Order: sequence, then C-alpha cells, then structure tokens
Amino acid sequence: MLIVQKYGGTSVGTLERIRAVADRVIESKQNGNDLVVVVSAMSGETNKLIEYAEFFTKTPSQAEMDILLSAGERVTSALLAIALNELGFPSVAMSGRQAGIITDGFHTKARINHIDTTFIKEALDNGKIVVVAGFQGVTKEGRVTTLGRGGSDLSAVAIAGALEADLCEIFTDVDGVYTTDPRIEPKAKKLDKISYDEMLELASLGAKVLQNRSVELAKKLNVNLITRSSFNKNEGTLITKEENIMEQAIVSGIALDKNQARITLRGVVDKPGIAASIFKKLADNNINVDMIIQNVGVDGTTNLGFTVPQNELEFAKKIMEELQSSEKLEYDNDIVKVSIVGVGMKSHSGVAAMAFSALANENINIEMISTSEIKISMVIQAKYGELAVRALHKAYRLDK
Amino acid sequence: MLIVQKYGGTSVGTLERIRAVADRVIESKQNGNDLVVVVSAMSGETNKLIEYAEFFTKTPSQAEMDILLSAGERVTSALLAIALNELGFPSVAMSGRQAGIITDGFHTKARINHIDTTFIKEALDNGKIVVVAGFQGVTKEGRVTTLGRGGSDLSAVAIAGALEADLCEIFTDVDGVYTTDPRIEPKAKKLDKISYDEMLELASLGAKVLQNRSVELAKKLNVNLITRSSFNKNEGTLITKEENIMEQAIVSGIALDKNQARITLRGVVDKPGIAASIFKKLADNNINVDMIIQNVGVDGTTNLGFTVPQNELEFAKKIMEELQSSEKLEYDNDIVKVSIVGVGMKSHSGVAAMAFSALANENINIEMISTSEIKISMVIQAKYGELAVRALHKAYRLDK
Repeated sequence: MLIVQKYGGTSVGTLERIRAVADRVIESKQNGNDLVVVVSAMSGETNKLIEYAEFFTKTPSQAEMDILLSAGERVTSALLAIALNELGFPSVAMSGRQAGIITDGFHTKARINHIDTTFIKEALDNGKIVVVAGFQGVTKEGRVTTLGRGGSDLSAVAIAGALEADLCEIFTDVDGVYTTDPRIEPKAKKLDKISYDEMLELASLGAKVLQNRSVELAKKLNVNLITRSSFNKNEGTLITKEENIMEQAIVSGIALDKNQARITLRGVVDKPGIAASIFKKLADNNINVDMIIQNVGVDGTTNLGFTVPQNELEFAKKIMEELQSSEKLEYDNDIVKVSIVGVGMKSHSGVAAMAFSALANENINIEMISTSEIKISMVIQAKYGELAVRALHKAYRLDK
Repeated sequence: MLIVQKYGGTSVGTLERIRAVADRVIESKQNGNDLVVVVSAMSGETNKLIEYAEFFTKTPSQAEMDILLSAGERVTSALLAIALNELGFPSVAMSGRQAGIITDGFHTKARINHIDTTFIKEALDNGKIVVVAGFQGVTKEGRVTTLGRGGSDLSAVAIAGALEADLCEIFTDVDGVYTTDPRIEPKAKKLDKISYDEMLELASLGAKVLQNRSVELAKKLNVNLITRSSFNKNEGTLITKEENIMEQAIVSGIALDKNQARITLRGVVDKPGIAASIFKKLADNNINVDMIIQNVGVDGTTNLGFTVPQNELEFAKKIMEELQSSEKLEYDNDIVKVSIVGVGMKSHSGVAAMAFSALANENINIEMISTSEIKISMVIQAKYGELAVRALHKAYRLDK
C-alpha cells in the first residue's frame, strides 16, 4: 500500500519521540508499504517562534512570519530523515516547496492550489521514505507560505489525494474519534469507522481530533483518513465515505458545545424581510450565527431566537442594539448545545423522539431544536449539559 | 551607496541584539544607503541543531543536515525583517534560495556557483531593505545546501560581488584586524586598511576575524570588505586591493600559530625523488604539510624538516614509519610558528634581517625559516612564542 502518515507536535515533541516515530515508520515500511511521512514542528517550537516575533510587534509582517514559522517543521523533517537513514532505511527530507505544495498567496493562512508530486514520486520510485515538512508551501512566485491551524493535517491529506494513496494516517495523542467526550461519559466508545459528514458535524461540535478543513479536503479528494495515537498500537478511527461503512449505526456520537450564547427577540412583526435585515447585519460584522429558530406567530408577532459563539456575544449585543426597533431583546449566556450525529438517522424515524424523551426523563427542558439530515441539535440550560450527554449516550446504546 | 552588511551569531544572539541590529541598519538606510543585510543564526542555535542530529548519529545524512542547519538563519532573517517593518522601514526576508544563491551539490560544504540577483534587485528597486538568510543556497536542482564554516560571510561577499556593491561590512564582536593578538601584546593597534593578500596570510596564521574563503572570494570579486564590531561605533578595518592602500606599511602584522608540530628526517640520501615520495604519501593521506626545509647536505646526506598541524602528528608519524627506510625520524610537538606579514616587504630589503636580530636580542633560537613575497615565518621553541611576538611587534614599530 501507499500510505501517507502524519505525526503531530506531541508525537515528535522530543528527540526520543522522534526516534519512536522512526521505529513506527519502519514497522510500516517493513510491512511492505511505501511511505510519505508528514511532520509538524516539535511541540512548543511554533509558539516559541511566535513569541520571538511578538517581542518586536503584535502585528508582524505576514510574509516574514511564514519564513519564521516554517522553520520548525523543516527541523523535524530533517531529524526524522536523519534517524531513518541511520537505521538503514533510505529517506529524504523535503520542505513544502520540494514536496511541490503550491498555495495561494494568503500568508499565514494559505490554501493549497495543487501539488506537483514529481519529486515525491521520484523518491518513492527509488525506494525511499519521503519525510515532508508539514504546514507549509510556496506560492507559484516562490514565496514561502504557511497553511494556518491544522496545516500539517492539510499537507498530509492533500499529498495523499495527489498521490492517490491508499490511506492517510493522522497520528496524534488520542486514540481516535469517540462516541462522546470520555471525560463526560467514561463509557464512551472509540468508533471504528465514521463518515466524512458525521466527522464534520462532530468536529464543528467540539470533537477536537481533526480540523474541519482537513476532513472537508479528505472528502473532496476521497482520501481514506485514519486518526490514531502515536503513543500506542491501538487501531484508530477510519474516516471514509458513507458507502464504505457497511453497517451504519443510527447514531455515531453525541457532542457538547459549551461555547454558545442565545439572543431572543420577542414581538417581532411577522412580515417578510425582518429576519433577513437582522442576519445580514450580523453577517456583515462577521458574527457566526449558528442555530436560528422562528416560530409561527399567533397575534401577528413572533419570537426569533438564535445562537452565537460566547466570545462574540458582546459585539452581537452592540449590533442588535444599534439596529433597534420595537422588539424586546433577551440574552442568555448560560446555555449549551448538545447534538446527536449519525448518517443512519436519515433512514430511521423516531430518532429525534428518542432524544426528546431521554431528556424529558431527566427533567431537562429543551429550549431550541434544530435538525439536519444527519444531526439533531438541542439548546438546554448549561447546568444540564453533561447529564444530557450521558442520558443520550445511554438512550442510543452507544456504550454497547 | 549600495552596502551589503553581515551580522554574525553573537551580533544577533538575542532578541534585544536583533533590535539593536535593526537600529544600526536603519541608521545606514537613513544615511541614504541601499541595504542588503545577511544574517547568521542566533548564537548557539546551529550548535543546538547539530546536537539534535547527533542524538541519532555521528554521521547524519548530509542533505538532511543542510535542511536542518539552514533553519537557524531563516529564523533570524524573518525576525530582523519583522523588526524593520515594525519600525517603519519596509523590508523583505529571503532564504538563500529566494536570494538566488545557486551552489554546487556538496552538502554541508557547498560552493557558490552564481547568484541570480533578480529578486534582490527588484526589492531594492522598490526601496526595500533586503534581509538574507546567510550560510545557505540551493543546487540548480533545488536541493537546500549550506556553505560550511564562515558560510554567512561568504554569502555576504558573494552577494556584494554579484550586485557590485560599494561596500561589504562584516559585523562581528571584534573591532577589526589588529597588528597582532592584543591578548599577547596589549599595545597591538587596529589596522585601518589591509590588502587581501596580507589578510589571507594573517587569517591562515591564526587571526580569526575572517575565514580565508571569504577573503579569497572578496579578492576575486574585488569587493571592499570592512570588518567591524556590532557592539560599538568604531571604524573597522578595510580589506581591499593593494592599489587602494596609499601608504603601505612595510609590516602589517605579526601572527602566532601554536598548532604546529615538526618532523625531522636525519640522514636523507641526497638524491632526487626522496622528498617527492615522502610528500606524495603525506598528501595522499590528506596531511597538511606547511613549512618544508631541506638543507644542502655535506656528506651525501641531508636533513629534511617539515611541519604539520599538531592534531595530525600522530597520523603523520604512522605514515612516516610505514614508509620507513634508513632515515632517523625525530618529532617535536613543542614548537610554534611566528610570522611577519606585510606587502611592503616586497620593496624593502632588510626586513628579514630585522626579525632575526630582534629574536637574537631575546636569545631566541630560530629553528626553521621560510619566506614568501609578503611573509616571513619562523619556527621557534613554544615557550618563546609570546615573547617573540612582542619583540617583533616592537622592532617593526607596530605600536606607533
């Protein structure tokens, strides 16, 4: 098989860890695989470089930041290749440029435009293990760029896509994707497989295993992604297209999002254009509105509720008050959003009803509901968040 | 003027020092100069990276070492450019590749083949200060290379040559080139000017200001080189072609080389080919033979003496003994070489005589002598080294 492996900052956090990664890479090579290994900077290195820049200014020139920040991954890639060569496995280190990663020109948050795999393929053809510095590329004019948060994952997925690799393994310090946060529900189970869309919902809902950008790219490029731990040999979680998952669970996981605040407008005149004007104004100010609920009115007025990230609430308040007309405004910081995710719910009725009764059994009042094809989200009082997660986890038998 | 400045590791050893360098660069810019600034890695960084590699092996793969080692200079170049931009002086950081430094493929000790100044000139034309990561380049195939010890000086000189810059200022932690080592002779004077050839002799004889490779390149490219301190505003020493130095001193400096050992063969049969076979064998084994003295024999045999670096003596002994015939071998580790350097001695007689009598006055026996157009070297007993330097310094009135 042709496998792209990616090791994150804690996985290469010390020289001893880099040697352990080398052993792991070699094990896969000895199993007959061809390997491209993408590495992050040693943990702490990137933050150190950011602190260096901040000694001079909080707003450093972005092109220079990219030259600065790309140094950490280069160091790790060189060290891992040196370790592999020493252990008798011919290996070549490549910067993002040498790996052919061509991006747009948005310094510090560039997007990959395409990958010229010439050098990687040549090295693979010569039997070499290719070690690529993650998180970085170059513009077509040759300026160094970096890819922003989660950038090394993106490098790995993009390379796997360009090479049509059989697998892209993302090694981190967690075992994979769980049915819910094990700190909330100790009976949470690791999932063997999950679809791209489920993973996208779970990630945006607070499962921090992978950035959405990487999952979206994997979906687009049809890359089979495995997330697993570099600290043990446990099988991870395969993230793949829905068709590859034979037995669909109705519900795959429960997510808890504590970073939500609610804004309610009471007595909104029930006529076209009101909601549009409010949400356009919020969008113009880059406020990320999440759930929106409007009930049919009874007396020509209605209540409009929506949620925003907690750290954007103050700004949203200001905008709402500027915009003011006759509606009564209410704010509530003391809520959480609990979500049930599963592609199986498309073909099963009664999934939502089961959630509602599970919460009712615990006397938890549901204040807002929104549903999509593969997700049911509910806003409840913050103090019930963990209890709701446990109740739902049990109701859908995710611990079995 | 178009000036290339180069700041070494101690000059950029801390973030505070980098800010001081920024101030110094700006001062020169404000004086109306166009500036290309070449920087080394922050002091200690390169050694740290070497230690990282040595954790895995004493013989790391060289191409990977170059990716590893080039990281330090990139960091410094980005930080200095960030500092300059923040202070309101538009600046752009460039890696060796972006600066167009094309080298051969000898990893970790590459030689610069040529410099494509397109990007540097474009940035200068736009009024920018160009900050270049020293010590590094790329092969024409695009592999990262480094230039070996003193590599950042080489980068600066090569760029100055390619741009036909008016001046190349090398900033270090010493004030310039001295008539002799001030730790031996406190009356040593800083030289205002010195010719390339004199500098070459002084450097190879132990004046550690500049590597010979850089001086040779400056001579070849006709670059006016100034070596000066980044820690004060003192004028440095200009290293330039002989014609630019109006008043030639007869003697410019006295150098002491403690890293010498002597091998003497007594009773060498005085016929052609004997010396040739010995020195060919030594050369084949990469032993650096320095002085060679053979006297005319009296009875058909002669004595042959030569010096080698102390750390190569044991190896040289081994070779000499393998080669053995009838000669008697003697070894002496307890010697030093003291040298007098000056282009003026070409046109002045009696320079050597003055040296011999100065040492005779101190009862110092001269054991070997060798001379070139601009240098007189003498081997003496080690214990007299410092005394000889002081005596010669005084004899040639270098303290005046």
